[in-house]
Amino acid sequence: MAQLDPTIGDLEGNTKKILKAIERARGQNADVVLFSELTICGYAPGDLLLHDDFIKANEDALSQIVRASSNICVIVGLVRHNPGKGKSLYNSAAVISDGQILGYYNKCLLPTYNVFDERRYFEPGREVKTFEIKGKQVGIIICEDIWQHSGVVDTRYAHDPVIDLLEHKPDILLNLSASPYQFDKPDVRVSVCAKAARTLKCPVLLCCQAGANDDLIFDGYSVAVDDHGNLRQLGKGFEADLFTVDLDAPICNVPFQYDPMKDLYRALVLGVKDYFGKQGFTKALLGLSGGIDSALVACIAADALGGENVTGISMPSCYSSEGSISDAKALADNLGMPFEKISIEGPFEDYLKLLHPYFEGKPVDVTEENLQARIRGIILMGLSNKLGHIVLSTGNKSEMGLGYSTLYGDMCGGLGVIADVLKTQVYDLSRWINRDKEVIPWSTIEKPPSAELRPDQKDLDSLPDYGIVDKVLKAYVEDHLAPKDIANQFHIALDVVEDLVRRIHSAEYKRRQAPPCIRVSKVAFSVGRRFPIVQGWM
Amino acid sequence: MAQLDPTIGDLEGNTKKILKAIERARGQNADVVLFSELTICGYAPGDLLLHDDFIKANEDALSQIVRASSNICVIVGLVRHNPGKGKSLYNSAAVISDGQILGYYNKCLLPTYNVFDERRYFEPGREVKTFEIKGKQVGIIICEDIWQHSGVVDTRYAHDPVIDLLEHKPDILLNLSASPYQFDKPDVRVSVCAKAARTLKCPVLLCCQAGANDDLIFDGYSVAVDDHGNLRQLGKGFEADLFTVDLDAPICNVPFQYDPMKDLYRALVLGVKDYFGKQGFTKALLGLSGGIDSALVACIAADALGGENVTGISMPSCYSSEGSISDAKALADNLGMPFEKISIEGPFEDYLKLLHPYFEGKPVDVTEENLQARIRGIILMGLSNKLGHIVLSTGNKSEMGLGYSTLYGDMCGGLGVIADVLKTQVYDLSRWINRDKEVIPWSTIEKPPSAELRPDQKDLDSLPDYGIVDKVLKAYVEDHLAPKDIANQFHIALDVVEDLVRRIHSAEYKRRQAPPCIRVSKVAFSVGRRFPIVQGWM
Repeated sequence: MAQLDPTIGDLEGNTKKILKAIERARGQNADVVLFSELTICGYAPGDLLLHDDFIKANEDALSQIVRASSNICVIVGLVRHNPGKGKSLYNSAAVISDGQILGYYNKCLLPTYNVFDERRYFEPGREVKTFEIKGKQVGIIICEDIWQHSGVVDTRYAHDPVIDLLEHKPDILLNLSASPYQFDKPDVRVSVCAKAARTLKCPVLLCCQAGANDDLIFDGYSVAVDDHGNLRQLGKGFEADLFTVDLDAPICNVPFQYDPMKDLYRALVLGVKDYFGKQGFTKALLGLSGGIDSALVACIAADALGGENVTGISMPSCYSSEGSISDAKALADNLGMPFEKISIEGPFEDYLKLLHPYFEGKPVDVTEENLQARIRGIILMGLSNKLGHIVLSTGNKSEMGLGYSTLYGDMCGGLGVIADVLKTQVYDLSRWINRDKEVIPWSTIEKPPSAELRPDQKDLDSLPDYGIVDKVLKAYVEDHLAPKDIANQFHIALDVVEDLVRRIHSAEYKRRQAPPCIRVSKVAFSVGRRFPIVQGWM
Repeated sequence: MAQLDPTIGDLEGNTKKILKAIERARGQNADVVLFSELTICGYAPGDLLLHDDFIKANEDALSQIVRASSNICVIVGLVRHNPGKGKSLYNSAAVISDGQILGYYNKCLLPTYNVFDERRYFEPGREVKTFEIKGKQVGIIICEDIWQHSGVVDTRYAHDPVIDLLEHKPDILLNLSASPYQFDKPDVRVSVCAKAARTLKCPVLLCCQAGANDDLIFDGYSVAVDDHGNLRQLGKGFEADLFTVDLDAPICNVPFQYDPMKDLYRALVLGVKDYFGKQGFTKALLGLSGGIDSALVACIAADALGGENVTGISMPSCYSSEGSISDAKALADNLGMPFEKISIEGPFEDYLKLLHPYFEGKPVDVTEENLQARIRGIILMGLSNKLGHIVLSTGNKSEMGLGYSTLYGDMCGGLGVIADVLKTQVYDLSRWINRDKEVIPWSTIEKPPSAELRPDQKDLDSLPDYGIVDKVLKAYVEDHLAPKDIANQFHIALDVVEDLVRRIHSAEYKRRQAPPCIRVSKVAFSVGRRFPIVQGWM
């Protein structure tokens, strides 16, 4: 099971990883080495697939892999041309043995929902089949093909490849996957495999992708279940892994254990690590307000890049409390981060003077708050440009959902590290980080949330309690419930729900200009969600 | 032919427009009133389609329309539930007559490429059919269904609904469309209808949507061709229209005439007008640099909103030429725009002082240029927040393509008015605007392009000639050609092409945070283009 961490489109680098895995597998006397979906180009390549020279280069890489397959069977995922009607590409698995391509399997079920766009590029395969490998009938399918059968998803495809395979009586089922991480999802993947194993009465091995590509986190955790659906082996979480499954060895079930909070944290760390590492960046910069959001982002970044590579900038104004600055400093010290303090009072006064002729006679409003956030953004971006450090954006999903953020201000940055983490989860994660010792100052966690952009400001002045906000956000954004159903289900007044839903839609224009975020929920405010800005529904 | 301008998701408002059109059609003794695709909710509603209450509301609106159909046949586009396998929705046409629903047609070919995501939501219909209306066999299909047959597109669907209709021998073919504007496309739509007419030997009527929704411009121009494919009537361009086609009247062919430059300009004006109008905004704000890009945007905005509603702000620095300020002022005067001048020298000096400890000893680079652009952004956004005017972003497609722009600086704004217009087209449009008299000062058009962010800066210092840049951009971004093919085709050195292509990919992170743009080309840097930021291909 070769659970790799490919870089999208880096065909040369990915092919090297594939060749190395083949060699290691051969060294371990493996009969078969199984890779994940679209191994050669990485998942998901997006519109690179529209370039013919890109497809050609994928095919060239396959030739290299074929040449390296002596004395072993290699099952690798790739994109290839469909010479027939329909979309011009297939999402395929090549089955290679001893320098020969035995055949291809073309993915039948093409997810086209949420973050998946497969119908944009691929024609579905029309038939399932088995390949004879070392005297066994081996069923080979790709990712989505196995999910419909489990009943845990609400897809309604006309075919079920697992059922279609029944008549082929496979001795084993192999699945090449690229299923992204989602909070609380890993055990689902095990039960999906178990269901197929019980139906087909054979072992099921599912090889996952690891690593992060833009918004998507692939958490690894490749699965091997026996013919009764019992979990036999599990790949490492959140990193590449290569492990051997011996089908002749006595079965020794492993219980599936995982820590949801730890996994969420690891997903975020991996998101930062790969966003930087795959682009050759090493250093990050962020504003440390003394609040919980930037504190959490600092912890994640320090774990991903090393504390010494993450600089925290405190940018106090006249509205900043003394505690905020000392909390920020204490956090930076705990994480071994360089720390700088740059006051924004000077520029703030200057802008107010400059704009006075236009602001005169008008009441103080969010303009002045946005101004402060934008001055901070300019400072961070100036340092970023001059020093080559990437700015991390620290807004959480609750703020992003409601537009409680400043465009071109605190929304500045290359990556929205916790933009898919609800405020209530921000608290959970921060307490989890502090489980053994104080990393984030407890005063940061315990004080009431505030943007500190006007005297004595508190989030609660402008928003309902985050417990309510997050329930509504999740139900509306992830589950698409109607406001009245949300109100009934959670016993929240309908006008509160409707007001929050209106805010979600009103902030669409801001989110359209947000940095990419690390997706950890079912529906993030990023690639998996496509709403019009101008609309008359809400 | 009821060519409406719906607002996405405004079911109440759209239904009112539909009812009014039915009444007017009845007043003109029409037998049939034909609407455009997804009339009730507007095209394209995006993920609003994932909300059950939204679908239910569409069905409720249909009931109202049915009740209003006495003595007339109404053919209206709507989304409705698919009770069977597959995706849960159909993109349908309801055929209604005299208070009864005669039946539905479900769109067979679902575009899932470029800006279209129909497979994300809809299950394809499986059969074509005719409806008997007033003793005639009427074939009814939806948008994409008619395109494959023409051969002008490179789709390769397994079915061709026009051919499938042959055996039904329709007396007339009706098509409900929502085909977005594209530079040089309107005559294509006429030839698409003509091809179907000649195949089926019957007249073809294609009703289009008008108006702008976010990035997409719908240009109207509904088409009626006779059974020989000759153009008979054409709806108005870029606005709603209601017109009667009398099939019994003697045929009087109209030549298809249009002015591509005028249409491009009208598309951009409509984009601004509807972005503002459909959200209830009336006033715009933009930085007037004295350069050609902001001058063109000012003209478009003044046409869309009235010059008095568009404020131009000149924000000179020490690098601004005197001519730039006077050109900006002259333009504002020509357009009847309020004009303000706010120097950025003070804030620029202040930031340099503030950041001096971090910048000291490091060479002056783009940081200082970005700083100026961002100060201008802050000023515009401050005025926008306080006065309620929407900032227009003035970057062109060539700059956006190569990342020759400042994130959170000149990229600020609610709408990228010319972000899909190449620099060479910016010149063409500006000269077209000045065709009768000087609106844009000729000095603005004739001076060498410069961002004026450092002494004697010229675009040509950092970029090849825009003639070359634009050829490469179009070939790579719109036609997905390989760099070596671009080099060969246009006789440009391969290393120049490769450098430009690398710049295109390197700027992906900036464009991800760009405001929505008005799409006028085949592939805009917006909804129709999905590239990974982190990738190893280029």
